[in-house]
Amino acid sequence: MNGKLTIVGLGPGSEAMVTPEVSAALAEASDVVGYIPYVARVAPRPGLTLHPSDNRVEMDRAKAAIEMALQGQRVVVVSSGDPGVFAMASAVFEALEGWPQAQGLDIQVLPGVTAMLAAAAALGAPLGHDFCCINLSDNLKPWDLVERRLRLAAEADFALALYNPRSASRPNGFARVLDVLREVSAPDRLVAFARAVSTPDQALATVTLAEARPEMADMRTLVIVGNSATRRVGRWIYTPRFAG
Amino acid sequence: MNGKLTIVGLGPGSEAMVTPEVSAALAEASDVVGYIPYVARVAPRPGLTLHPSDNRVEMDRAKAAIEMALQGQRVVVVSSGDPGVFAMASAVFEALEGWPQAQGLDIQVLPGVTAMLAAAAALGAPLGHDFCCINLSDNLKPWDLVERRLRLAAEADFALALYNPRSASRPNGFARVLDVLREVSAPDRLVAFARAVSTPDQALATVTLAEARPEMADMRTLVIVGNSATRRVGRWIYTPRFAG
Repeated sequence: MNGKLTIVGLGPGSEAMVTPEVSAALAEASDVVGYIPYVARVAPRPGLTLHPSDNRVEMDRAKAAIEMALQGQRVVVVSSGDPGVFAMASAVFEALEGWPQAQGLDIQVLPGVTAMLAAAAALGAPLGHDFCCINLSDNLKPWDLVERRLRLAAEADFALALYNPRSASRPNGFARVLDVLREVSAPDRLVAFARAVSTPDQALATVTLAEARPEMADMRTLVIVGNSATRRVGRWIYTPRFAG
Repeated sequence: MNGKLTIVGLGPGSEAMVTPEVSAALAEASDVVGYIPYVARVAPRPGLTLHPSDNRVEMDRAKAAIEMALQGQRVVVVSSGDPGVFAMASAVFEALEGWPQAQGLDIQVLPGVTAMLAAAAALGAPLGHDFCCINLSDNLKPWDLVERRLRLAAEADFALALYNPRSASRPNGFARVLDVLREVSAPDRLVAFARAVSTPDQALATVTLAEARPEMADMRTLVIVGNSATRRVGRWIYTPRFAG
């Protein structure tokens, strides 16, 4: 059992945000496993087998990666952003849970620049004070829990980084998110939409909560909601370090 | 006014986690500004002036950086981790707020791997579900607000990433944090202490909330508190993607 399983984050899109240790892991890999668009970011080369797979098959993908590592391959599981934030690392550990012999594998998780950090940097510094990070997808949890967390986080005056605000299967979810925020927060609260951050398609827009519309977000958008002190300065937004 | 101001994150410590765009910005810089131990991570070279300064002078440092950029210098402001998470980016935008001519500068924020992502990767995947990120320092906000946020975040069953758990000036703050968490969360809640992550001094420990002691954290520790589902698998901890 000399195989190796490395779970890496490719960052939000720009190659200039891929860390050297992730590039080194990819250069040594025999097999790269991941969701189709992320595997497409890895350059083919002799000796490397790419294993792209569809969305929503995270457990199958994790098991296949572990199997290959048990057979002695040097397997890299790729996620966009950071592998530990709403990405493949949790799926791999879930797969390991009932698999004692696989727990002896050489396993490493290599962090990456998650979307909210790149979005915040492009916008200024809206996450410069306490914040919460919520995945709005209700594939993996009941909608009531999403709503309860949003409400408590807004009551505590956290800034919010909202992943997966909208998908084809949940066309109305983000409208409900905005409704919940409007119950708790003032209409002048800043809401920033950061689409395809660090790619050629990057688009940024900041509006007030009163002006925010569900269709401002799509599957490639990361939404950042400021806290009560978040403000504009020039073309940026930032959250002061002080509160209270 | 052809100066440039770039606010970068050096990641948590390992050079293998510094992004290529941050390395490129440092290679082009005429001046590097920051807290002494972070500036010490930048190699001296001809044509580069290093401007290390002490802690708690963030505004002076931000203003000095802006002044140099206005004079035409290529200034890089360095933070550890990510510059937008409890670091220099907010201080720079605060300094820009009353300084309209400086708002015309060429300013860029380059994200980095913040400590909680590197800590989570070293531990497994404890931030694989919704989480909150709280700076426990009460230099910048009243203690009541820290406590209120902790309580609401724990009630909402977020995992928690806690920055600056302990300092010489706040020897008892972290004991109070543990007391608040014990009021809201079960005694078997997992609490992980990640010290000096990604450096040769890295030390990891995971205990239950019942076992957690204030002295397990120091100034170089990032604390991650799991949510109610966070569990051990082999030598790792992870938070399942599902909830509910």
